[in-house]
Amino acid sequence: MTVDGKPTLGIGMVGYAFMGAAHSQAWRNAPSFFDLPLVPRLAALGGRNAEAAAEVAGKFGWESVETDWRRLIARDDVGLVDICTPGDTHAAIAIAALEAGKHVLCEKPLANSVAEAEAMAEAAEKAARTGVRAMVGFTYRRVPALSLARRLIAEGTLGQIRHVRAQYLQDWISDADTPFSWRMDKTKAGSGALGDIGAHIVDLTQFLTGERITGVSAMLETFVHERPVPEAFSGLSGTATTGAERATVTVDDAALFLARFSGGAVASFEATRMASGRKNALRVEINGTDGAIAFDLENMNVLHHYDHTEAAEHAGYKRILVTEAGHPYFAAWWPPGHLIGYEHSFTHQAVDLLNALATGTDPEPTFADGLRVQRVLAAVEESAAGDSVWTPVPQ
Amino acid sequence: MTVDGKPTLGIGMVGYAFMGAAHSQAWRNAPSFFDLPLVPRLAALGGRNAEAAAEVAGKFGWESVETDWRRLIARDDVGLVDICTPGDTHAAIAIAALEAGKHVLCEKPLANSVAEAEAMAEAAEKAARTGVRAMVGFTYRRVPALSLARRLIAEGTLGQIRHVRAQYLQDWISDADTPFSWRMDKTKAGSGALGDIGAHIVDLTQFLTGERITGVSAMLETFVHERPVPEAFSGLSGTATTGAERATVTVDDAALFLARFSGGAVASFEATRMASGRKNALRVEINGTDGAIAFDLENMNVLHHYDHTEAAEHAGYKRILVTEAGHPYFAAWWPPGHLIGYEHSFTHQAVDLLNALATGTDPEPTFADGLRVQRVLAAVEESAAGDSVWTPVPQ
Amino acid sequence: MTVDGKPTLGIGMVGYAFMGAAHSQAWRNAPSFFDLPLVPRLAALGGRNAEAAAEVAGKFGWESVETDWRRLIARDDVGLVDICTPGDTHAAIAIAALEAGKHVLCEKPLANSVAEAEAMAEAAEKAARTGVRAMVGFTYRRVPALSLARRLIAEGTLGQIRHVRAQYLQDWISDADTPFSWRMDKTKAGSGALGDIGAHIVDLTQFLTGERITGVSAMLETFVHERPVPEAFSGLSGTATTGAERATVTVDDAALFLARFSGGAVASFEATRMASGRKNALRVEINGTDGAIAFDLENMNVLHHYDHTEAAEHAGYKRILVTEAGHPYFAAWWPPGHLIGYEHSFTHQAVDLLNALATGTDPEPTFADGLRVQRVLAAVEESAAGDSVWTPVPQ
Amino acid sequence: MTVDGKPTLGIGMVGYAFMGAAHSQAWRNAPSFFDLPLVPRLAALGGRNAEAAAEVAGKFGWESVETDWRRLIARDDVGLVDICTPGDTHAAIAIAALEAGKHVLCEKPLANSVAEAEAMAEAAEKAARTGVRAMVGFTYRRVPALSLARRLIAEGTLGQIRHVRAQYLQDWISDADTPFSWRMDKTKAGSGALGDIGAHIVDLTQFLTGERITGVSAMLETFVHERPVPEAFSGLSGTATTGAERATVTVDDAALFLARFSGGAVASFEATRMASGRKNALRVEINGTDGAIAFDLENMNVLHHYDHTEAAEHAGYKRILVTEAGHPYFAAWWPPGHLIGYEHSFTHQAVDLLNALATGTDPEPTFADGLRVQRVLAAVEESAAGDSVWTPVPQ
Repeated sequence: MTVDGKPTLGIGMVGYAFMGAAHSQAWRNAPSFFDLPLVPRLAALGGRNAEAAAEVAGKFGWESVETDWRRLIARDDVGLVDICTPGDTHAAIAIAALEAGKHVLCEKPLANSVAEAEAMAEAAEKAARTGVRAMVGFTYRRVPALSLARRLIAEGTLGQIRHVRAQYLQDWISDADTPFSWRMDKTKAGSGALGDIGAHIVDLTQFLTGERITGVSAMLETFVHERPVPEAFSGLSGTATTGAERATVTVDDAALFLARFSGGAVASFEATRMASGRKNALRVEINGTDGAIAFDLENMNVLHHYDHTEAAEHAGYKRILVTEAGHPYFAAWWPPGHLIGYEHSFTHQAVDLLNALATGTDPEPTFADGLRVQRVLAAVEESAAGDSVWTPVPQ
Repeated sequence: MTVDGKPTLGIGMVGYAFMGAAHSQAWRNAPSFFDLPLVPRLAALGGRNAEAAAEVAGKFGWESVETDWRRLIARDDVGLVDICTPGDTHAAIAIAALEAGKHVLCEKPLANSVAEAEAMAEAAEKAARTGVRAMVGFTYRRVPALSLARRLIAEGTLGQIRHVRAQYLQDWISDADTPFSWRMDKTKAGSGALGDIGAHIVDLTQFLTGERITGVSAMLETFVHERPVPEAFSGLSGTATTGAERATVTVDDAALFLARFSGGAVASFEATRMASGRKNALRVEINGTDGAIAFDLENMNVLHHYDHTEAAEHAGYKRILVTEAGHPYFAAWWPPGHLIGYEHSFTHQAVDLLNALATGTDPEPTFADGLRVQRVLAAVEESAAGDSVWTPVPQ
Repeated sequence: MTVDGKPTLGIGMVGYAFMGAAHSQAWRNAPSFFDLPLVPRLAALGGRNAEAAAEVAGKFGWESVETDWRRLIARDDVGLVDICTPGDTHAAIAIAALEAGKHVLCEKPLANSVAEAEAMAEAAEKAARTGVRAMVGFTYRRVPALSLARRLIAEGTLGQIRHVRAQYLQDWISDADTPFSWRMDKTKAGSGALGDIGAHIVDLTQFLTGERITGVSAMLETFVHERPVPEAFSGLSGTATTGAERATVTVDDAALFLARFSGGAVASFEATRMASGRKNALRVEINGTDGAIAFDLENMNVLHHYDHTEAAEHAGYKRILVTEAGHPYFAAWWPPGHLIGYEHSFTHQAVDLLNALATGTDPEPTFADGLRVQRVLAAVEESAAGDSVWTPVPQ
Repeated sequence: MTVDGKPTLGIGMVGYAFMGAAHSQAWRNAPSFFDLPLVPRLAALGGRNAEAAAEVAGKFGWESVETDWRRLIARDDVGLVDICTPGDTHAAIAIAALEAGKHVLCEKPLANSVAEAEAMAEAAEKAARTGVRAMVGFTYRRVPALSLARRLIAEGTLGQIRHVRAQYLQDWISDADTPFSWRMDKTKAGSGALGDIGAHIVDLTQFLTGERITGVSAMLETFVHERPVPEAFSGLSGTATTGAERATVTVDDAALFLARFSGGAVASFEATRMASGRKNALRVEINGTDGAIAFDLENMNVLHHYDHTEAAEHAGYKRILVTEAGHPYFAAWWPPGHLIGYEHSFTHQAVDLLNALATGTDPEPTFADGLRVQRVLAAVEESAAGDSVWTPVPQ
């Protein structure tokens, strides 16, 4: 099947909540704003609740609904499986899809354990030999300001990297009476702030620096140990926590760790959902011998860049409004100064994935990248459990 | 025709450039994110160049293309005409559409002259008697941070308004060799920075304060009087400026004026496309006896609010990240701290318009509001031509 | 008399309130931090109230007190008269001092009327022939960030200046029950926000651009017409407003004007004491063909600089922390990043004045510069009184 | 001896470089701006180099010079010894002074080792029994914005503290060819960034929270191991590193550590002199259950305060310009919005110390507080040397 003479790719998406909406928007917007070699078709939306799935499908133009992800994978008109479910289901779905010869886009974190992630990376590597591709959804790589930061660093603008400081600060469960959800349940989510938002800054800083985290010293903290169970609550696995008035939080509220990068930089990481007043403050600062960059997701169209090679009296952090046609991805959007938002990075992710598939190259971040992040998260948990002692990350 | 049991409204949009893309996105996104009583259908896209129009139609899912706007208006499946063309064509299209019983959404500024705007407002008033509605597209009213500002002011939070300072600063034609375009041609655009971006801050400040501008003292300036004509340039009217290497700029590059509001506030306005370094800096600051607000479109998800009734040692400008479910429009989008961008205000405009149509109320801003803006622009031009002398705005 | 082999200059200062403290600090700090060719000696402090003056003298180390400014001028040990009194007394004191062969530093605005300012400028010019110097105290020229801005502009970094926007926003009399003071009394202060703070931005923008304001279109506004009289209130002239419970405000609360500069720039000015939430927001933005600068006195150690000659994807406003040894005046102070405050500019003023006196050059801003500002203020008042009509500034 | 009927206190200051100038300014300014019960007299300045000391003494008004600190302590006219020398000399001078019955103000960090600090704290405790007082110079407690933060936290405004993140980022030795100085010499400075600037954030966060750091997990890093020796270099101890072209850096360039506070908060600390682009960025953020504060020394007159008890749609970080008469220390200075700078905190320190002496109370921070900081620094070094393992801080 072709659209305007271009080949199409049938997307089958599993999950339809927050991430499902963001991904739906991405698949739909990609061909409207970008000139693509491969046109996505919203073939099938997968969800256990047929009615709820159908409603979302109607809103975004999905052609059909499947209540069993195995059937969704099996469909002839599905060429790519987009996994937007909680982490405990990623491995099963992704491996099945890859084995069925379907490309896979899997939300982050790749899995809930290193073992799962390893199996997935192995499946991805095997699939790649037959031209089947896998990608993990660390979308922040595609925020134009961060893509620009990567470009500046890759060009050597910052010199040798010495300092990385990364924080992902939210406060949505700061109140003790915020209800329990699957994100506080270790069996579903793997970990708390660590895997949910800490994973983002781990991937992002490795991406930005082009280096790897080699070891960590960590602490985890849970401030609120019990939370009220919402009346209508039912776990995604179907085993609703009913009857109970309060559920036990089995994940971290906050994760802090020190780290070293392969190029010699020292680093400080913090991920928390309890930083009152910070709503989505993913902040990264990187200082090198020749310059520095600073970024805050709460002002996501801006990159601050410092050029240390300038004379001291001319130097200063430059606020670059990353909305120029010459900036990553931006030529597709609006005139300079007309901002884009959170969802646009998902569109950029879809665009990059479709381009990679069309040219037969491996889309990044790969499942191997996702596994690399998982190993850092595991080292963090190990260090935190062991008196914060320095814990190398297996490379 | 209905979708999910809901009535639909066929949209016929004229024009498919910058504004066309923004509006297409709005019509498509509105029903995906908002629960609407009336579902828009992208029935027909109008454009003189059939091929170019068809390409845009394909990208955004318009069902058909019309090369003659009169035919587009006449279509049975078109219930609302969305006008995204340059200002010199607004009056003709809007009046024809209203007379044909079609609702109208018309891009700003409403027209290129007060006379045209009066005719349009009259047509709108006449149409309203038969339930046909007209709205002018001052979308910035729908930026959540500015909607929140309006809410705060309407609730009396700022007390009596004393100061309004509004600037709309861009620099896209700061370079003398930026090519000539229809926006520098008085016959097409009516005026330069004044009507293009000055109109926005005139409407916005009247909206925010709930007051009217009663008089102005103004200056206009054109810094670059001749510009190179791009090779492929052709006026929208079809009369291409060919053969000439340079064209004369017949509009203002910058417009500055002082003003008074009906409630007693004094005001300062500036609109320019030559403010090097400012890309889309629509800034508004309003000081009242009890508080103040400040906003900058280059950081559009933020509203600064100052509460003058607090003790001096606790008072300060509060940076409100306008991304909470309790903020205007935001419940439909993402979790707190996940930003939205330029195009989302167009979706909000579509949503408000569809809601008004469904409930039979007049959507705002009305053509009368658009006329009111036009009268301010005319007073500015009159004052500037008359030694900046104080020039009342007819009410 | 010499100190460390250096000649000294006896300072006689008239007035000892807010400005008196700032100047005392300046005279005392100058030789502590700067290497001066001429060492100031705090010879005599003048004030009608002997007791109050003696207290201030004791605090800052003034050697003696005079209750009659004429006697202060006549003293042999006074070589420079520093005038820190309200505007209505400037002319008399300054002219007498110059005629007595004493150098003069006079607080801004130079006078309360053009006529007075002309007489003062004439006296200064006459005195200069005999090596007696006069300077007016527009200290903001000496804020390092603004001195740096001047340097950048003088070097041509901004290209041709097109836009000047200057605001001086305070809110200290925003409340209607803030008591009456001499600053609201036209006979003492000459004007309100216009002369008090508007004078600063007039001088500053002429200094920064190296151009002159050639004409204005203006409005003045008084929001609060009557204010309570503080019990102990007594005018500086001795004619206390007693018995009355409320006094009439005879000056403007706010002054707004548009202007043109001699080099072709268009400008917008606003001075107000009623901008709730703004405490001392002297903001200047200047856009030229090749770049721009932006400054806010509420963050006074920072200059924002935009270089329009950079590629669009690298350009942005650069936040220069103006605390480097290579920055104006800063080598005398602290290491980079260690801020200075409001009072330091007064020290810089004293340093520049002493250096000029030692080298026999005219210190700037001269009384002629002060007169130039006065003429702009007069044109503003004239325009405001005449329906905002364009009013040229005599050059 | 009395001044204006007030008792005086003779100050003997040892050291006259950077800190010496700041302290001189403080002693001189305190009685000019504050109403003091005890008036400082600049009795004697101590420095080994008589000529250099005399020059500084002349600039700031010190009455005499001593080249031997023991003689300075012995003088009858010296009632307080102010120690501004490198850390390796603190213990000897402070203990001698206390034993001689002289009050002591000692620059931070208190000492170069816990053993020295313990001896000093013991000496201070012993001296206190006879009314002799000792204080350590963590001046940042006296930045008005930080004093205000402490007040807000002490009043319970932030609720229970959960997160502390503190960074002190400088870049003055980022370049590998920045010359060697005593601050890179472990025998003189004790440690590098850790003791120099890390000590500040350790004391400050303990002060702000009113809690203690109970344990740490740390890393130290030296990026530049050898530096050029300036020609004229001579160690303060007189043993100049001569003949050598390069000297070995024996301290850390950067120190990072995680920590826990006694009240349950988790914390992240970083001190570095290699963060290119950051000049003096002491940043603190503290999140509690009910609110948060944020501060950056590069914009030191501002405190950001977030009130989590407000409705989500009204909440936001409030930028409090800490220049109101109701703010700590500010009534003594200028009108609202007129900033103060780095040196003013030293004046506040002098004022608080003089007030404590006059009222016979212990000035804070005490030597016991200084010892507490020292123990944290020691724990950091121990953890860093031991694979970052969690290291409790002796209380």
